[in-house]
Amino acid sequence: MNNRAENKTINLSHGSGGLMMRKLLNDVIFKAFDNKYLNRKHDGALVKLTGEIAVSTDSFVISPIFFKGGDIGELAVNGTVNDIAMCGAIPRFLSLSFIVEEGLGLESLIRIVNSVKTAAKNSGVRIITGDTKVVEKGKGDKIFINTTGIGEVHPKANISSEKIKPGDKIIVSGCIAQHGMAIMSQRKGMEFEADIKSDTTNLNFLVKDILDAFGSKIHLLRDPTRGGLAAVLHEIAEDTQTGITIYENKLPLEKQVAAACEILGIDPIFVANEGIFVAIVDSDITDDLVELMIQKEKGKNTVCIGEISQDHPGKVVMHSSIGGKRIVSPPIGEQLPRIC
Amino acid sequence: MNNRAENKTINLSHGSGGLMMRKLLNDVIFKAFDNKYLNRKHDGALVKLTGEIAVSTDSFVISPIFFKGGDIGELAVNGTVNDIAMCGAIPRFLSLSFIVEEGLGLESLIRIVNSVKTAAKNSGVRIITGDTKVVEKGKGDKIFINTTGIGEVHPKANISSEKIKPGDKIIVSGCIAQHGMAIMSQRKGMEFEADIKSDTTNLNFLVKDILDAFGSKIHLLRDPTRGGLAAVLHEIAEDTQTGITIYENKLPLEKQVAAACEILGIDPIFVANEGIFVAIVDSDITDDLVELMIQKEKGKNTVCIGEISQDHPGKVVMHSSIGGKRIVSPPIGEQLPRIC
Repeated sequence: MNNRAENKTINLSHGSGGLMMRKLLNDVIFKAFDNKYLNRKHDGALVKLTGEIAVSTDSFVISPIFFKGGDIGELAVNGTVNDIAMCGAIPRFLSLSFIVEEGLGLESLIRIVNSVKTAAKNSGVRIITGDTKVVEKGKGDKIFINTTGIGEVHPKANISSEKIKPGDKIIVSGCIAQHGMAIMSQRKGMEFEADIKSDTTNLNFLVKDILDAFGSKIHLLRDPTRGGLAAVLHEIAEDTQTGITIYENKLPLEKQVAAACEILGIDPIFVANEGIFVAIVDSDITDDLVELMIQKEKGKNTVCIGEISQDHPGKVVMHSSIGGKRIVSPPIGEQLPRIC
Repeated sequence: MNNRAENKTINLSHGSGGLMMRKLLNDVIFKAFDNKYLNRKHDGALVKLTGEIAVSTDSFVISPIFFKGGDIGELAVNGTVNDIAMCGAIPRFLSLSFIVEEGLGLESLIRIVNSVKTAAKNSGVRIITGDTKVVEKGKGDKIFINTTGIGEVHPKANISSEKIKPGDKIIVSGCIAQHGMAIMSQRKGMEFEADIKSDTTNLNFLVKDILDAFGSKIHLLRDPTRGGLAAVLHEIAEDTQTGITIYENKLPLEKQVAAACEILGIDPIFVANEGIFVAIVDSDITDDLVELMIQKEKGKNTVCIGEISQDHPGKVVMHSSIGGKRIVSPPIGEQLPRIC
């Protein structure tokens, strides 16, 4: 094997613990994430944290790894940053672990690492420790990424599903179904005239803003990723044994996404999102909260879509645009594998 | 698909965010790791930690997933627990993330989850948050596991390669090359008469014992996994630009492992370990440290294998049993892929 070939694709030697792995780490990973934590090059990192700590982990297996509006690297940072934010916490640190399939182009890896870097910078988190494994061709799929996030709980936050009570309002921070429809259209090889882009983004600063302003009046935060809005609302209804009422005509939905859903016969409330969150809040603050959120770029389409009710405990009921009511069935199985 | 088939193997629906995923999580994962952190069933966990925090991550892609002496579940816990211990910290919490290949038997998953549970209990760590993804058949290999560990730095610990100085002693806590040779013999379909077992185990309590006793006199701790003892010693020599001298006749090696290495023409210092560590320590404490360690089950084969020298900076030199000296070359590429 000559040097040039070595430099162009990842092979099993890059995961061996030997010189080739060290070179890859030094040339690509440590170079990108130059910081005092990672530069120790130890098996772990030492950090200082105060108060209550939020921890969340996610493995990202999305296919394709590059998609309209983002890539697996950006998604892996934003996804975990958002999970930490949903705990009412300020994300501080991320670990980063790659499982690379032999044969991945080094160029692709570098592009993904740079996306991770940019996304981490945008979220204000540091990549402090990592791992790289390589598996044989046909035993993986280009690249899988695990990120585990650590954050400090916001001093005013008190997020707990136990606080949810009838009358609470259900807020959604932006248009639904964008991520899933972007991936779906790309995978099916469709070319919608309108370009649907993944909404992947970090939500931690928007969450911090509302926690600063409304603290413990924010009862629950969830990001509706796999299974979409329907999955999150069902989980809340089931876990709290309250009823959830939502209004179809309130659901924020971009025209082109709505059109694509209609063409494909897909209900947008089942489609994955990566750049919005659901908040269950005390009804007192609804108007002020929505007003604050719509002033922020990432919350400009915020809307109250419904409320917690005493009726139909454990169920999600949607009032349709034409006046009817229907029970929203929970997502059962797989609508779209490997969406995140 | 009937219910029975659903119950027997993992399919893509188990990774969808829908009802089948919730059922799998409830029936298998939450059931095994019943604790207050995980039971919140949120996207993340809240924990309390004090002082300086160590964080480490590892993805485990070992093949086969069940091997002599352990399985991927046990390895995934011990590996990260040990990495945290190597930071001079007491492991407290682990995240657990599965990437499952469609078609994995549910029985295998349950067996692995139970191994994780036992290993976590043995190490005194809690599984606090997790994630499960499913990929199509042929896009993974049975199961990959990521664990990320969080620990509290031992109050007496001050682990730093910067403290390494000429005269420091190099201690190894047990026999080398067992894990790698166990996997290798199994993979090549060899049946050595002697049954070589992986040494996978948790080292955190042994590390705590020596930190309690010797504190900052322990200058560096490393577990020689991928690339074996040679990789770790090379990294230390290179990072600190000191010379490392080791003595071949001091290397602790079980007879059957030595024999297997000889048959296969493999140098045991390049073979992966999962149940031993290397400590670089102040020479003052050498005898007391070894004496303390050999009294413990997991340190009973502890030995001092060499020292840090002023000569040959950046290089590892081995004095052979017959009186010669040779430079130990660094491991370059892949000796044995997917060893951990």
